[in-house]
Amino acid sequence: MTQNRFPGVLSPVVTPFDADLAPDGARLLDQCRWLLGQQVGLAVFGTNSEANSLSVDEKIHLLDELLDGGVDPQWLLPGTGCCALPDSVALTRHAVSRGCAGVLMLPPFYYKGVSDEGLYASFSEVIQRVGDPNLRILLYHIPPVAQVGLSLELIERLLKAYPGIIAGIKDSGGDWRHTAAMLERRWDGFRVYAGSEAFLLQTMRAGGAGCISATANINPAAIARLQQNSEAPDADAQQSALNSVRDIVSRYPMIPALKAIIAGARNDPTWNRVRPPLVALSASQNRELQTELKSMGFSLGV
Amino acid sequence: MTQNRFPGVLSPVVTPFDADLAPDGARLLDQCRWLLGQQVGLAVFGTNSEANSLSVDEKIHLLDELLDGGVDPQWLLPGTGCCALPDSVALTRHAVSRGCAGVLMLPPFYYKGVSDEGLYASFSEVIQRVGDPNLRILLYHIPPVAQVGLSLELIERLLKAYPGIIAGIKDSGGDWRHTAAMLERRWDGFRVYAGSEAFLLQTMRAGGAGCISATANINPAAIARLQQNSEAPDADAQQSALNSVRDIVSRYPMIPALKAIIAGARNDPTWNRVRPPLVALSASQNRELQTELKSMGFSLGV
Repeated sequence: MTQNRFPGVLSPVVTPFDADLAPDGARLLDQCRWLLGQQVGLAVFGTNSEANSLSVDEKIHLLDELLDGGVDPQWLLPGTGCCALPDSVALTRHAVSRGCAGVLMLPPFYYKGVSDEGLYASFSEVIQRVGDPNLRILLYHIPPVAQVGLSLELIERLLKAYPGIIAGIKDSGGDWRHTAAMLERRWDGFRVYAGSEAFLLQTMRAGGAGCISATANINPAAIARLQQNSEAPDADAQQSALNSVRDIVSRYPMIPALKAIIAGARNDPTWNRVRPPLVALSASQNRELQTELKSMGFSLGV
Repeated sequence: MTQNRFPGVLSPVVTPFDADLAPDGARLLDQCRWLLGQQVGLAVFGTNSEANSLSVDEKIHLLDELLDGGVDPQWLLPGTGCCALPDSVALTRHAVSRGCAGVLMLPPFYYKGVSDEGLYASFSEVIQRVGDPNLRILLYHIPPVAQVGLSLELIERLLKAYPGIIAGIKDSGGDWRHTAAMLERRWDGFRVYAGSEAFLLQTMRAGGAGCISATANINPAAIARLQQNSEAPDADAQQSALNSVRDIVSRYPMIPALKAIIAGARNDPTWNRVRPPLVALSASQNRELQTELKSMGFSLGV
């Protein structure tokens, strides 16, 4: 079993929409190329990508547009976990068939209070139906949104049944004890990604792989630099600088704020659009956010 | 604007699966015919139908199988609310084009803490994109599962913008105060359905329309009888009898329990199958449940 080299930092790339709220593949490709230029991988179709507001066909089409546009599949880890088994299978199969480094997989998230047995069966069915030894899955633990989390026992059972295929986790639980508990297990070849760069240095020092973070959409170079230099003498200062940017953005609804920052930097208001149930920032929120970032000397540099 | 006559009791029909976990249209049709024979309408693709474990294509295909099998569309209110706008539009459009009495619509349920503004836009976009004056929507309020609820203000705004099209609500919040608050508003032509027959008599007495309840899958005739005779002298006794059955079933995971009861009555173990992340009852749970129901003299009568 080969060990793919995964990027240390990935961005759950925000998805641009046209005036009819259809996904805009050309703008997404532009943004992805820029992120790759900052040494940041592409976790397209993550929570911050409004992935669950996109249909399966839209995601397959967007992925094709990126790959046909020349994006290296080894820098791509699309989100493929849906509520319905056939949807997760279709998306995952497509991503593997096109050579993506891996996929980021949510558990089915409609039914609540489901058992580890049921979640194990969910992942297991997808793996068996895709049936490709090149499949690499990063599990996606995000209980604050999905409301369905992944226990240590479940992860351990999946690792035992599918070694190599279960390649790691994105931990967006916001609970360092859960992250630490996984890192302490030192599961062979299991990559632990923090779900926010706020935990990046802590994660790297404890043997983690990096982070997959919303704000990697707008602060990619600095986040990638710390991931690559976590033993540098100024690592703590770097972490503080990352936190300052994140703290400002976090005062706004995250996805609309990320889009507003990109729209501002690109001078392209199209980027402000979100699909319902999300709502774009108001003009005054947008102005405030841009002013705050400007006053701290932050710029996107697209 | 015509007022369709909606059934007073509907069953969120459980979905049978074959050995490959594919939906079994023939068995579903059988069960639907039996339910119709008990004067119970078909809220296929509800929570208890494992609707969110089915792909859009699977739901469209199943709906076609029912209609092509002779089910009267005026007894059908399929669930069509998905996380992704194009999915909700495709399903809703199909249901309306085939003459269904209405649809039952969840709000998008992945993103949490979304605003009324965003939820309004979600429903509004679906209505406008479907663009059919024959569309009738029952809103689906089920915060314990979806974690995204529908406020009185949101409902009022939708009713104002889309009178006639917003036809009512299924309230599965389990909070009588919310149901009562809607009933007290006496919104013109707005049908309030309890999400459980435990609230049926209370709902009818307060001017509600009926109920759409999990256990209408297995106790349809008795529930329909109370809905049609809520002013009968024995109405309270009828309600108590309904509660006794529901109380037993509620001690088990609801969907697997409903399926086990149907499997037992039909002597057809196929009916026990669920899709992950759900898990079928264990053999001992199944035996216990059947014994308890038998000891109270309950039988499905299929």
